[in-house]
Amino acid sequence: MSNIVIIGAGVMGSALAVPPSESTDNHVTLVGSPLDDAIIDAVQHNRHHPTLDVALPESINALHLGELDEQHLNSADIIVLGVSSAGINWAVNYLESRNIRPPVLALVTKGLVSNSDKHGAPLTYADVLAASMTSPAGQLVGIGGPCIARELALGIPTRVTFAAKNEVLAKDMRAHFQTPYYRITTHADFVALEACAALKNFLCIGVSAMFTAYPLHDNHAKNPLAALYNQAVRELFTLSHWISNSSPSHHFTNQHMQNHVAFDLAGMGDMHVTVGGGRNSRLGRYLGQGKTINQVTSGAMKGVTVEGVDTGRNLLDGFRAACCEGVLDIKQLPLTDTLLTCIDEDTRFHFDFSSLPV
Amino acid sequence: MSNIVIIGAGVMGSALAVPPSESTDNHVTLVGSPLDDAIIDAVQHNRHHPTLDVALPESINALHLGELDEQHLNSADIIVLGVSSAGINWAVNYLESRNIRPPVLALVTKGLVSNSDKHGAPLTYADVLAASMTSPAGQLVGIGGPCIARELALGIPTRVTFAAKNEVLAKDMRAHFQTPYYRITTHADFVALEACAALKNFLCIGVSAMFTAYPLHDNHAKNPLAALYNQAVRELFTLSHWISNSSPSHHFTNQHMQNHVAFDLAGMGDMHVTVGGGRNSRLGRYLGQGKTINQVTSGAMKGVTVEGVDTGRNLLDGFRAACCEGVLDIKQLPLTDTLLTCIDEDTRFHFDFSSLPV
Repeated sequence: MSNIVIIGAGVMGSALAVPPSESTDNHVTLVGSPLDDAIIDAVQHNRHHPTLDVALPESINALHLGELDEQHLNSADIIVLGVSSAGINWAVNYLESRNIRPPVLALVTKGLVSNSDKHGAPLTYADVLAASMTSPAGQLVGIGGPCIARELALGIPTRVTFAAKNEVLAKDMRAHFQTPYYRITTHADFVALEACAALKNFLCIGVSAMFTAYPLHDNHAKNPLAALYNQAVRELFTLSHWISNSSPSHHFTNQHMQNHVAFDLAGMGDMHVTVGGGRNSRLGRYLGQGKTINQVTSGAMKGVTVEGVDTGRNLLDGFRAACCEGVLDIKQLPLTDTLLTCIDEDTRFHFDFSSLPV
Repeated sequence: MSNIVIIGAGVMGSALAVPPSESTDNHVTLVGSPLDDAIIDAVQHNRHHPTLDVALPESINALHLGELDEQHLNSADIIVLGVSSAGINWAVNYLESRNIRPPVLALVTKGLVSNSDKHGAPLTYADVLAASMTSPAGQLVGIGGPCIARELALGIPTRVTFAAKNEVLAKDMRAHFQTPYYRITTHADFVALEACAALKNFLCIGVSAMFTAYPLHDNHAKNPLAALYNQAVRELFTLSHWISNSSPSHHFTNQHMQNHVAFDLAGMGDMHVTVGGGRNSRLGRYLGQGKTINQVTSGAMKGVTVEGVDTGRNLLDGFRAACCEGVLDIKQLPLTDTLLTCIDEDTRFHFDFSSLPV
């Protein structure tokens, strides 16, 4: 019997509890963060998860944080951090203060952190965790790929990538999570995967502007959307490769670049679903109509967290420094460059197709 | 002054006449095939192209075939074959019988031809042309990438790839065709580009089935669509690499696989727009509802040419032989395999996500 504990009962953490709960070999505990009390109350009452709008299987043990037996947490085979980026520090402190070091620590939370050296590449949460915990890089597993939480919780098929520095760890975790509808590939470049998972939210904003920037009488134009989607994946490749190579956790030399995570589920696959809907895409559609980011975030999307904007802010200094130093070629990255200017200066987003590299 | 002649006044040939017609350095002639009389009549009458529903610029000289001065054709710097696959043999015979060999012969027509050796990889039209004309492989330029004809004719931005065995030829042609809205990259693997352009129609059928196979109350599920789109691009890479390596025109060793055409405009970019609409996607959406190909092509889509099905038929024997001989690994190509079975046996399309490679 494997003991799987998921911390954070938001939509993604809760949905991820569903596939492993189907196996009688797993004991799955879903623990609410201090912000999840209403969700845990509802699930304990009648199994219905209010934000997922799905009934969770009986085999998932849903607990308030205070109900969690620390002995149980200490004996966890896999701990999944399912909190939002706002909660990641809380979750790490919670585990650290109790000296809890599971064999596998999986990370759902996605984002970049700007480097304390302003000239350095941004760090992924994987790097931050590796630095803040006692040598846990070897425990970390990243999860990437197209995965709308509610669809996963409903058992609709998808396919994702688990990545770990020691790929065996990702394969071990797969053995507990894979079902006929939740298909899993594994990869060793977990920093690139984490970078893709964060950056796709950022780049998606520019791609999604193409839904509204070229209206036709019956629909929107599709050529600019496809061309910029393509460019976004190419830039995802370049940026995630750079971030992985710059990472203190770097260890990986990819000899078959066609197998780079950017050209697979955590890159082009996740970009496809991210452009299709969600907050980042919604912001992008407003930008395509000529609004600035501040106009949208103080107007139609007031109070809504748009992760891609935060990711852009944390990318900014490192990106500019790397371009100045010739580590990155800004001419190859016009979408990133254009979006960062919009974030930095609150200018309108206009993508000049002539700026695309020849 | 460069003399550009486009043969075939269907939507794609006619749209392609627009970008070069903007430069006073080009003289652009659009010649109707014997099937295009009504189109040429209309354009000559009031510039309005009836199937594009766009007014063509005055600078495009639209002619019936009988009005074309053979001297003019003989002095063409660039000839573009813009006919449909049904017209390609006619067009080649037309040029061959007049012994016309332009410095650049560009190919809009896309499709695969089954190999006369049933165990051989299918051929692209580029190979067929190279075999039927006197050593013209060095003249051929392939065009691929996301490009809905009407959007191009309206001057809405997109980005495509021109490919030629001698990449300089593709760059020369770009110099005549590039505008601020029609952006062009070049590549040397023109066989892989031609293979991608044909195969994307075929693979798109399976991807598009995901629009209807997993309905939700307000929309369709997006995870299966993204996961299968991703798989389609991966299979496009594997198949086009195989076809290019097997081609009699093969010459190309790609040392940077991340620059393979499948992971760029002619592959993932064009797949994005192809899944978004058109006949192949329409067929796929019917298959996702449980219909077989014959049911659709004798019913709702009776009389409609679905190029992806023809491409699949011409792929079938070579694919199966290559899998038997271990040249291709069928386990890496479940989408191709599943679709070919549907085409061959007229079975329902059901994609088993468990068949995806680990």
